[in-house]
Amino acid sequence: MGGLLDSAFPDGRRDRLAEVADVVDWEPLEELTDARATEVLRDAEVLVGHWGCPTLNADVLELAPELRMFAYAAGTVKWQVTDAVWDRGLLVTSAAAANAVPVAEYTLAAILFANKGVFSFAALERDRQSLVPLPFERFGSVGRRVGLVGASHVGRLVIDLLAGHEMDVAVADPFLSDAEASRLGVRRMKLDDLCAWCDVLSLHAPDIPETKHMIGAEQLALLQDGVTLINTARGALVDPDALIAELSTGRLAAVLDVTEPEPLPSDSALRSLPNVVLTPHVAGAVGSELVRLADLAIDEIARYASGEPPRYPVRREDLDRIA
Amino acid sequence: MGGLLDSAFPDGRRDRLAEVADVVDWEPLEELTDARATEVLRDAEVLVGHWGCPTLNADVLELAPELRMFAYAAGTVKWQVTDAVWDRGLLVTSAAAANAVPVAEYTLAAILFANKGVFSFAALERDRQSLVPLPFERFGSVGRRVGLVGASHVGRLVIDLLAGHEMDVAVADPFLSDAEASRLGVRRMKLDDLCAWCDVLSLHAPDIPETKHMIGAEQLALLQDGVTLINTARGALVDPDALIAELSTGRLAAVLDVTEPEPLPSDSALRSLPNVVLTPHVAGAVGSELVRLADLAIDEIARYASGEPPRYPVRREDLDRIA
Repeated sequence: MGGLLDSAFPDGRRDRLAEVADVVDWEPLEELTDARATEVLRDAEVLVGHWGCPTLNADVLELAPELRMFAYAAGTVKWQVTDAVWDRGLLVTSAAAANAVPVAEYTLAAILFANKGVFSFAALERDRQSLVPLPFERFGSVGRRVGLVGASHVGRLVIDLLAGHEMDVAVADPFLSDAEASRLGVRRMKLDDLCAWCDVLSLHAPDIPETKHMIGAEQLALLQDGVTLINTARGALVDPDALIAELSTGRLAAVLDVTEPEPLPSDSALRSLPNVVLTPHVAGAVGSELVRLADLAIDEIARYASGEPPRYPVRREDLDRIA
Repeated sequence: MGGLLDSAFPDGRRDRLAEVADVVDWEPLEELTDARATEVLRDAEVLVGHWGCPTLNADVLELAPELRMFAYAAGTVKWQVTDAVWDRGLLVTSAAAANAVPVAEYTLAAILFANKGVFSFAALERDRQSLVPLPFERFGSVGRRVGLVGASHVGRLVIDLLAGHEMDVAVADPFLSDAEASRLGVRRMKLDDLCAWCDVLSLHAPDIPETKHMIGAEQLALLQDGVTLINTARGALVDPDALIAELSTGRLAAVLDVTEPEPLPSDSALRSLPNVVLTPHVAGAVGSELVRLADLAIDEIARYASGEPPRYPVRREDLDRIA
């Protein structure tokens, strides 16, 4: 497990972990092939991973003959696992579902503020310029059209959080069926239709070859004047040149927690445009939110210990569809 | 009714109003004592008010012998009513409960973003300075202590909206009983204790003599480093000199939708401080959110027409306790 032990397992979570497992070594492993790792891995049945965890390649697995499960107590697990993991038939679980909670909360806040024009009003109060000439009727959350790209863990939580706020929600996701959309209480649209329809567009798709720059010049041009683009997913989803070109006109606004590249160069136009709010990839679990990841991982280990299947397994074929 | 007819009664709301009442004149009255008003008021049984509605004084009421009800389709009614209204025994209703919905949504968004450090991160991304040295554990929403001042319509809606976000909520309100606090699922605290306890402090108290500058130098000094103060209520609740002095140190942050004075002078320090987000009194209903106010007022008129008491009456004695 890479670093962050105190943040990752605070407030009694170490005790909980110790209740469901015999912990071989509390000290996080920074390397998985050095002398201490060799010692620890010899008997380990479960490996708990977190941010900074090294890749589980064939060399590592060779040192871990008893290993049956990799419980990743953070979001995106795809950089840690390799074919060797699948070939060995290891159980892999990820806390992506728990990491999705704060991302969805960030998105909810960004949508509510976008509907109010908070970001543009705040920029104007600061710069004492005249008001953005959006008509009065375009403000306010009631009936506002929210377009979500991706019915992922985060996308679905955003749908849940928007319930009760009287907005109109549509989702573009090639894997979402009509029946599922109906169950979620949302419309299903093709991406381009979604872009032309929405007042706010929020991205919750994985970073896979098929989604690279899926929001390009064409999609941005389809957005109506005054639309806010929210990206808490991955910078690669958006063509950065097209984004900067469109935002530079002032026609659109953006709340970006992720960018391409990341971090942005210090002279990026995105840093100075008044219609852009940038945060440094913090929408996912930070600080006190890490306990949710710990709880999920501990629950998965407890299930393994009692012979139950994991609730949040990651399989080889999932890697083509997850963040 | 002062102005804004199209915004205030859009999307079929005029038809709904016409279903429950015979509308004497659709054209809003800007004055209540001129020739047209004299004509309209002669037969009016119900007067619908909105932003900009003139005061209902004795001269106005003398022109309106049939008047039985004043249905105010906006929030704060106290500038419209006078002793003459109470002496005549008019029914007064206000849409403050409906106006509270967007205020609570704005507050929720501000709390979620404050917990994430979004405002400070965004300012830092823009100015390329080094990170605010708050410890990592202080970020994140889980277990974060939210202090609410006032169990008003807005305060209670904020409590509702925070449910499920795993924060810890306490309220200071001299009119809130222990039993009621327990029913709401919050702690009850004295204001100074609340200030010393919270990670975020949000104001939802009325503007009455007892609350003027209730957040002064002493209360601000009690707030821990890194606390965000949110004011969507009234500027008069906060001592402006003490606020600017404390915010200028960078020790606290603020999200202010209301200020004293309002609007702020163009050279106010609050406009340029990097730890302050200012919006121009837009947390209440704007744009599409006005339909909620219309719906509430129409419902109250329908209740009156069918002999039922109003759901949201305002009484003489309430004026000492409402915004």
